[in-house]
Amino acid sequence: MNLNQSFLYAGIEAGGTKFVCTVASGPDDVRAQVSFPTTSPEETLRKAIGFFKAHEPFAAMGIGTFGPCDLDPASPTYGHITSTPKLGWTQVNMLGIFRQTFAVPIGFDTDVNVAALGESKWGAGQGLDTVIYLTIGTGIGGGGVLNGQRMHGLIHPEMGHIRLPRVSNTDEFDGICPYHGDCLQGLASGPAMEARWGKSPAELPPEHPAWQIEARYLALGVSNFIFILSPHRIILGGGVMHQKHLFPLIRAEVKRLMNGYLQSPMILERIDEYIVPPGLGDRSGILGAIALAKHTAKKS
Amino acid sequence: MNLNQSFLYAGIEAGGTKFVCTVASGPDDVRAQVSFPTTSPEETLRKAIGFFKAHEPFAAMGIGTFGPCDLDPASPTYGHITSTPKLGWTQVNMLGIFRQTFAVPIGFDTDVNVAALGESKWGAGQGLDTVIYLTIGTGIGGGGVLNGQRMHGLIHPEMGHIRLPRVSNTDEFDGICPYHGDCLQGLASGPAMEARWGKSPAELPPEHPAWQIEARYLALGVSNFIFILSPHRIILGGGVMHQKHLFPLIRAEVKRLMNGYLQSPMILERIDEYIVPPGLGDRSGILGAIALAKHTAKKS
Repeated sequence: MNLNQSFLYAGIEAGGTKFVCTVASGPDDVRAQVSFPTTSPEETLRKAIGFFKAHEPFAAMGIGTFGPCDLDPASPTYGHITSTPKLGWTQVNMLGIFRQTFAVPIGFDTDVNVAALGESKWGAGQGLDTVIYLTIGTGIGGGGVLNGQRMHGLIHPEMGHIRLPRVSNTDEFDGICPYHGDCLQGLASGPAMEARWGKSPAELPPEHPAWQIEARYLALGVSNFIFILSPHRIILGGGVMHQKHLFPLIRAEVKRLMNGYLQSPMILERIDEYIVPPGLGDRSGILGAIALAKHTAKKS
Repeated sequence: MNLNQSFLYAGIEAGGTKFVCTVASGPDDVRAQVSFPTTSPEETLRKAIGFFKAHEPFAAMGIGTFGPCDLDPASPTYGHITSTPKLGWTQVNMLGIFRQTFAVPIGFDTDVNVAALGESKWGAGQGLDTVIYLTIGTGIGGGGVLNGQRMHGLIHPEMGHIRLPRVSNTDEFDGICPYHGDCLQGLASGPAMEARWGKSPAELPPEHPAWQIEARYLALGVSNFIFILSPHRIILGGGVMHQKHLFPLIRAEVKRLMNGYLQSPMILERIDEYIVPPGLGDRSGILGAIALAKHTAKKS
């Protein structure tokens, strides 16, 4: 297939709260976009299919989905949502439903791997071969492009579920993860903040002590990700990170936790360029889906 | 270059305690091997060079080294040991010293990435594209082959330095990491066990309560690595893991910590095949160095 800039691609950011669907050739040429709440699979997928039917033709499709999901092309349940707590979505064959309707190559991956891909191609990760993208919002999730390839393996990363020490002996909040209690997501997601303080993150003023604690938990997570993955850059997105005052707090705490062990100028001198907001703002996921579609078209 | 099984390769496992040097064509055809303590760089590297001079010719060389070290081929200090606490070794140009003497392609990587490569090629990781190798001994380190490629990024993984929760409220051991105190290495390396119990791991009988605590810290580390990296298999090597009774304790604790969240048969039903000792025993590192040499010859 001879690809040029005028080819159009379909992208889906399938989130636990809302779906975004786009037809575009790239970040500067979005032809149509729609978003709607994630309700039942029937209603939600019908709306998505209707939108794309109205905007054919396109050369390929990319789907970035909430999870857990099956990313193994050799598996009989490839493209399914698997063990999600989200009502009605367990074992929904998301990829299959779009494959039945659209006769184009379709790429399928987690929302965070797809956002990492989008940031790698057009955002804060351009030119770097190892980039991590975290979302801190309704949940905490992480994905990445390592050595230029998305992170898969046995299932896919579920970075929000790592265990961390408490930031103080007096922190007795139990955490809200139904599986792990006080994992990173259980302690530091938006709903965890709300459970701890009785207010949503958007209602807590920047001087509230909640933010110091939030920054310390996120920094513990980020420093563990650095020790394990050694990324060239870490991108922090999602609703909670709209609170931009979190960035300097997190960076200072990561430096303190590292304590000079990793002798890289990026950490020691230029941490402002190392731990950053998404270059694509809130569009990392949906533009990542377009990037995945392009990549899938090229491979097929 | 036309490679066949009769080509010989040089391998170096440069550990903080000892060096192992081998000339071999593969795991079943080791022609010569020597090992000696790691003392000053001058003495140690002179011995290694002497050994390889006596066993020329070989087609390529592979070096797996203790670190931290510089793995970026574009860096002016590529191939150097960087900020090691090991006396006299800071900024030693290890790769350069061998390049000056031997006119063959030389591959250079961390000891644990090289051990992961060896296990991928000839050991417990054969046929899997995402494999993690951890050593639990004098220190704790981890490396991996992800999507078939060794883990590099900004520097290289330093997995032993992640922070973890304490396994009980009454555990008041401070940890011995000079940088981080109670990181994984500070709490669960061989010297950490010795500092905590006043005896080396080899002197502690299997029924000693030390092992339950050790298994719980290692399981916290392993479960964080699984959530972040999603490997197809995790291989645990190093001196402390010679205590084979640790394996069932770690596996049971990892299952408890995961709490059914990752719905993979490898974790839910076959964890005995998921968290395993090295297939190459204590030879993962040195045979990995031979694998790296072969790989480097092929690329050049």
